[in-house]
Amino acid sequence: MSELAWLAVDWGTTNVRVWAMGATDQVLDARTSADGMARLGGDRDAFARAFQELIAGWSGPRPLPAVVCGMAGGREGWQEAPYAPVGRPLDALADLAVRVEIADRGLDVRILPGVSQDDPPDVMRGEETKLLGLGPVSGLVVMPGTHPKWVRLEQGRLRRFHTAMTGEVFAAIASHTMLRHTLTGDGFDLDAFAAAILDAKAAPERLLTRAFGLRASDVLGHVEPAVARGRLSGWLTGLEIEDCLHRLDADKFVLLVGGRDQTARYRRAFAHYGITAEQHDADALTIRGLVSARSRLFPELPAAG
Amino acid sequence: MSELAWLAVDWGTTNVRVWAMGATDQVLDARTSADGMARLGGDRDAFARAFQELIAGWSGPRPLPAVVCGMAGGREGWQEAPYAPVGRPLDALADLAVRVEIADRGLDVRILPGVSQDDPPDVMRGEETKLLGLGPVSGLVVMPGTHPKWVRLEQGRLRRFHTAMTGEVFAAIASHTMLRHTLTGDGFDLDAFAAAILDAKAAPERLLTRAFGLRASDVLGHVEPAVARGRLSGWLTGLEIEDCLHRLDADKFVLLVGGRDQTARYRRAFAHYGITAEQHDADALTIRGLVSARSRLFPELPAAG
Repeated sequence: MSELAWLAVDWGTTNVRVWAMGATDQVLDARTSADGMARLGGDRDAFARAFQELIAGWSGPRPLPAVVCGMAGGREGWQEAPYAPVGRPLDALADLAVRVEIADRGLDVRILPGVSQDDPPDVMRGEETKLLGLGPVSGLVVMPGTHPKWVRLEQGRLRRFHTAMTGEVFAAIASHTMLRHTLTGDGFDLDAFAAAILDAKAAPERLLTRAFGLRASDVLGHVEPAVARGRLSGWLTGLEIEDCLHRLDADKFVLLVGGRDQTARYRRAFAHYGITAEQHDADALTIRGLVSARSRLFPELPAAG
Repeated sequence: MSELAWLAVDWGTTNVRVWAMGATDQVLDARTSADGMARLGGDRDAFARAFQELIAGWSGPRPLPAVVCGMAGGREGWQEAPYAPVGRPLDALADLAVRVEIADRGLDVRILPGVSQDDPPDVMRGEETKLLGLGPVSGLVVMPGTHPKWVRLEQGRLRRFHTAMTGEVFAAIASHTMLRHTLTGDGFDLDAFAAAILDAKAAPERLLTRAFGLRASDVLGHVEPAVARGRLSGWLTGLEIEDCLHRLDADKFVLLVGGRDQTARYRRAFAHYGITAEQHDADALTIRGLVSARSRLFPELPAAG
């Protein structure tokens, strides 16, 4: 790979993803490992070793630039990149990047900051780079996931955001309560999900009795696991939508960032609200955001090695 | 213990409790073991063995009557005692008790049924016996716990009830999400809890963003674990109260059944609603309920052995 010019890196909680980038910011190759923050957290040397292993065999200029977003910049990460406050233009985040102190002189690693908000207290690490990848747009951005984020953008500035624990609470209930006997497998009934969105809209406070009722229904008769999963997910996601949509001033059009299955669910939910969504692929946005940061951190790429 | 006349048994999910009872229904002795339904579930012989071990050394008449309530009557229990439908007088539940087929001719074990409700689907096993212990009263009964139950009683008839997953969802979030780093220890700030009850009353749909915000606050500064636990518990309990109180037609007076710490939290929450609560000890009610069932199942106790 003689044309390798720099490395784009998304270091998440469970995975780390690296893209080999060319001199014109084209993707040459990609690799993934499970050495996420959750596995390495707190051990800086482990981050360095994991990174070396991940890029083994790729040769480029020395020092090889690497631009990193995500949890690697957390307090328990590779090296802390303190949060930037909300309100700044996203394309200026790169100015707050931290240079990793690393023994290997062949690498020049910069970690991008996350973004924090004081009121209400909230944080993100990694999503800001996807938002940067959207360019200087205005609108309401919805990013489904373990911790879905709802973001109000104004001409490329992050004005306000809210994070919900939807995905993680679903997983905790599905695996660590008596509902595990009802929520088996990984089927997902989209109609049951859509109906549950309406339940939550009508009476969000019923979440905890609905959850028990799901188990009771299964004990008294039988509930298909895929239907049960759809319902619980809909009751939780419905809370999130009722909450975030109104706090960020509902639009009839949102930018939806994520994978196909997740975004299909949100589309279905949004239909109840008369909202249309424009879909954006999360990885593509991450790469675009890292390219934007690269152009600021390393405006002149070194000649290929 | 020459005067042992019968055994009162509460077989729960995590524990089994047995009381040695005299001929005038006085408590002579009590024992507890961790052989709850969760440990033995699905193995009928294990229930019989666990029971023999628990009462080892106690001698009484043969056959010795035993009246059991709780999960021992579940589908995965000692022997299934099908649910009775809501609406029946509680003191008639004993008529639906199931006699356990047991090899030991020295025991005569009867398991009381639980109560089920079709709309909304709900079930209880064990709480109905506490309610029976209240006598032929009317009113709104609140029973805190892993699965808190809210019950509308009318002259000793169970008219309607709702179960929330409050306690179990709290435990799942506290132990199996990233909030475990914030919710350490077992401290509990009652003021934080009370404030969170008001949060939930004002905007129940914010549960999932509040939960994430708790972690964010801790990352950005520091939140005392006891305060964090109080808040999360208050947000969940607040949902439960908003939900159940209105569905069962709020009274300004409730009967509160449970241990001291739990009921203290509910008292504090009820103060926001102008509700006063009369406290009842859960174990005392269970014994009274089992005594009531005993008088129907074994109207004449055998002479002491």
